[in-house]
Amino acid sequence: MDTRFMRAALGQARKGLGRTSPNPAVGAVVVKDGEIIARGYHRKAGLPHAEVAALNKLGGRADGHTLYVTLEPCNHYGRTPPCTEAILKSGLKRVVIGMKDPNPDVAGGGCEFLKKNGVSVTTGVLETECRRLNEAFLKFVTLRRPFVSVKSALTLDGWTATGTGHSKWITNDRSRQFVHGLRDKSDAVMMGVGTVLADDPLFTTRLKRGRGRDPLRIVVDTHLKTPRDARILHHDSPADTIIVVGPGVTLEDQKWYNGNGVSTLICPIKAGRIDLTALMGILGDMSVTSLLVEGGASIVGSLIRDKLVDKFDIFKAPKILGGDDGVPMASGQGPKTMDRSLMLKDLRIRRFGEDILIEGYPDYK
Amino acid sequence: MDTRFMRAALGQARKGLGRTSPNPAVGAVVVKDGEIIARGYHRKAGLPHAEVAALNKLGGRADGHTLYVTLEPCNHYGRTPPCTEAILKSGLKRVVIGMKDPNPDVAGGGCEFLKKNGVSVTTGVLETECRRLNEAFLKFVTLRRPFVSVKSALTLDGWTATGTGHSKWITNDRSRQFVHGLRDKSDAVMMGVGTVLADDPLFTTRLKRGRGRDPLRIVVDTHLKTPRDARILHHDSPADTIIVVGPGVTLEDQKWYNGNGVSTLICPIKAGRIDLTALMGILGDMSVTSLLVEGGASIVGSLIRDKLVDKFDIFKAPKILGGDDGVPMASGQGPKTMDRSLMLKDLRIRRFGEDILIEGYPDYK
Repeated sequence: MDTRFMRAALGQARKGLGRTSPNPAVGAVVVKDGEIIARGYHRKAGLPHAEVAALNKLGGRADGHTLYVTLEPCNHYGRTPPCTEAILKSGLKRVVIGMKDPNPDVAGGGCEFLKKNGVSVTTGVLETECRRLNEAFLKFVTLRRPFVSVKSALTLDGWTATGTGHSKWITNDRSRQFVHGLRDKSDAVMMGVGTVLADDPLFTTRLKRGRGRDPLRIVVDTHLKTPRDARILHHDSPADTIIVVGPGVTLEDQKWYNGNGVSTLICPIKAGRIDLTALMGILGDMSVTSLLVEGGASIVGSLIRDKLVDKFDIFKAPKILGGDDGVPMASGQGPKTMDRSLMLKDLRIRRFGEDILIEGYPDYK
Repeated sequence: MDTRFMRAALGQARKGLGRTSPNPAVGAVVVKDGEIIARGYHRKAGLPHAEVAALNKLGGRADGHTLYVTLEPCNHYGRTPPCTEAILKSGLKRVVIGMKDPNPDVAGGGCEFLKKNGVSVTTGVLETECRRLNEAFLKFVTLRRPFVSVKSALTLDGWTATGTGHSKWITNDRSRQFVHGLRDKSDAVMMGVGTVLADDPLFTTRLKRGRGRDPLRIVVDTHLKTPRDARILHHDSPADTIIVVGPGVTLEDQKWYNGNGVSTLICPIKAGRIDLTALMGILGDMSVTSLLVEGGASIVGSLIRDKLVDKFDIFKAPKILGGDDGVPMASGQGPKTMDRSLMLKDLRIRRFGEDILIEGYPDYK
C-alpha cells in the first residue's frame, strides 16, 4: 500500500525533473482513508516544496491524514520555511518518506523533528527509485560536480557515423524524441567542437508534445574553432551557449563571440586538450547539476579515460554498417586486455520501435 | 486450443533440431479428448518421421483422435513410406498442420490427399513459429544454399577484441553456453584463418548439460596458413574439419593436412579472397543446411557485402573499451551514408545475465 502511494508521489516528482536545479525533484501526495486527496511537486527553486504544494491544496489542513513524500522534508530555513513546520501545523498523523535528505551542508533531522513532535514516520519506501530519480542531484549535493551522462547512438556493429562522417539518422524518430526529453531534463548539454564542425547541431529541446526547456549548451573548443555562423550560436533560445577554450586563446579572439552573446570560459588544459576534470569542477561551481554529453568520439574517449562518466545511454539502431571505416563512439587508446574494459552495472533496456536503448552505470575500479 | 497442442508439437520438433539435416525438424502430438496421449519427433534422416514416431507409440492406432504436426505430412516415398498412409491407417479423424511442405522437388499434396480420404485438415496453426524453427531448412530446400548465421560478441561500443587482439572473455558463461547450443544445432561452423591464428579455437560443442554434437568445422584459408599444430586439427571429435583454400594452393601443400585427417576444399577466388558466394554453392551441394559463422572481421565484412548473411546473432556485453583501437565486427569498406547501411528486421532481444543478445534478419535491398 505504501509503495502504491509512493509511486504516485514519484510520478509527481518527475513533473519537476529538470526544472528544480540546483534543488532536487520532489513529489508528494496526501492520502485520506486509502485515497489520494491532494498532490504536489516542487516546480522550481524558490517556489514551494512538494509537501507544502500538496498541503496548500487542502488549505494547509490535513488532520489525521498521511503524507507520502519522495525526499525527507526539510527542517531548516532556506528560500522557503521548513516543511516540517507546515506538516506539524497541518495536523498530519503520518509521514512516509522515500529517502533521507543527502545534503551534507544542511542540518537534516526532518524525520527526528517530526517523530519528536508525535508524527509517525516511515522511511525508505521505494528508496532505490527515489534515489535514481535524483541521481544527478545526489552527486551534485555530495561532490559539487555535475552528474555526467554520455548519450551515444550506434549501429549494431558500433559506429556513430559512416566513414564520411554521415550520421543522419542512425536512430528513429521515437529515439530522437527521447533524447530531446533528456535535454529537457538536463541542466546542460556538452559536445566537442568536432561535432559542431561535422553536424552543425542546434542542441535545443524540440519535444513534439508540450514545450521543452533548452539546456545550457557547452562547446569544448580548445583552440576556438567554432565557426561564427554555427547554428548553435544563432538561434532563438532563452538558454545560453558557452564555449570552453584553452588558456592559449586570447581575449581578442574571444571578443567577437562575447560581443554576440556567447560566453567563453577559459579552462586549464592537460596534454593539449581541455582538462575535463577541471572543467567539471568549474561547472559544479556554476551549479550545473546534470550534464548530458552528446559526443563526439574525442570528448567521450577522454571522459571515459578520466573516469568522469556517471551514466551511459547507448542507443543501438537495428542496422549494420559492415565495414571498419566508420566513426567509433570513443577515440583514443583502449585497454590492452578485455578484462580491463569498463564494466557497466544496473543495465536497463528499453525499446523505441526497433531501436534499443541500453542504460548503464560504469563500475570504475 | 489448437495453438496449445501445436506448441507442444513445436517442443517435440526442437528436440531434433540440428540432428535431422538435410531433413527438417518436425514434431507431432496425438490428442484424445483434450489430452496428449502420444508425442513424437523426427530424430535423424532415415529414422521415422514425427507423425509415425508418435503413432508408433500407440501401436499405429489412433481412431477418432487428432494429430498436431509442425509440417505437412509427406505424401511420397522417400527413405520412409509416406506419412499420409500411416495417418489413414491409424484412423485419425483430424490433422492440424503448422506449415505446408515447402519442398519444391517433391510432389506435396499431403493435405489434399488426407482431405480426399475423409480426414479433417486444418493448416497454418502457429505458422510463423513453425517456419522460424526450420528457417535453415526452408532456405536450403528452396535455394540449395546453407542458411548463414553470423554470431558476433561485441562490447557496447562495438569491439570484438582489444587492440592487442585480446577477446577472452567478452561475454559471460551463460552467453557462451548459448553459443555452444547454436553449434549443436548447426551443420557447420565457419571461421577465417585469422581467428585460428589469433585464438586457436576448438569450435566444438561443449554443453554443460547433456552431450552436444560437434558441427563440421570450416576454416577459410586462401593461402593455407593454418598451423599444423592448430587445436582445430587436433582434438577428439567425430566431426570433420575442412580447410577451404584458393586454387593457388598446390596438392603438395595440402598433402600433410589430408594425410592427417583434414580435408581441403579448393574454391574459386574473387579479388584475391575465397569467393564466398561460390563457397555457399559448394556447401549447399554438400548438404550443409545451416552454417554458423563465428568471425573474424574479414570474413564477416565479406559476407555482409556479398549479401550472404541470413541472420545475425549479436551479443552485447555490458562493457566499454572506450578507445578506437579495438577489433571491429567487420573489416573492409562500409557505405558512405547511413541510409545505405544494412537494416535488420524482426529483432528479438534476449538477456543472459547482464549480456544482451540481439537477433535479427538482414533486409537486403
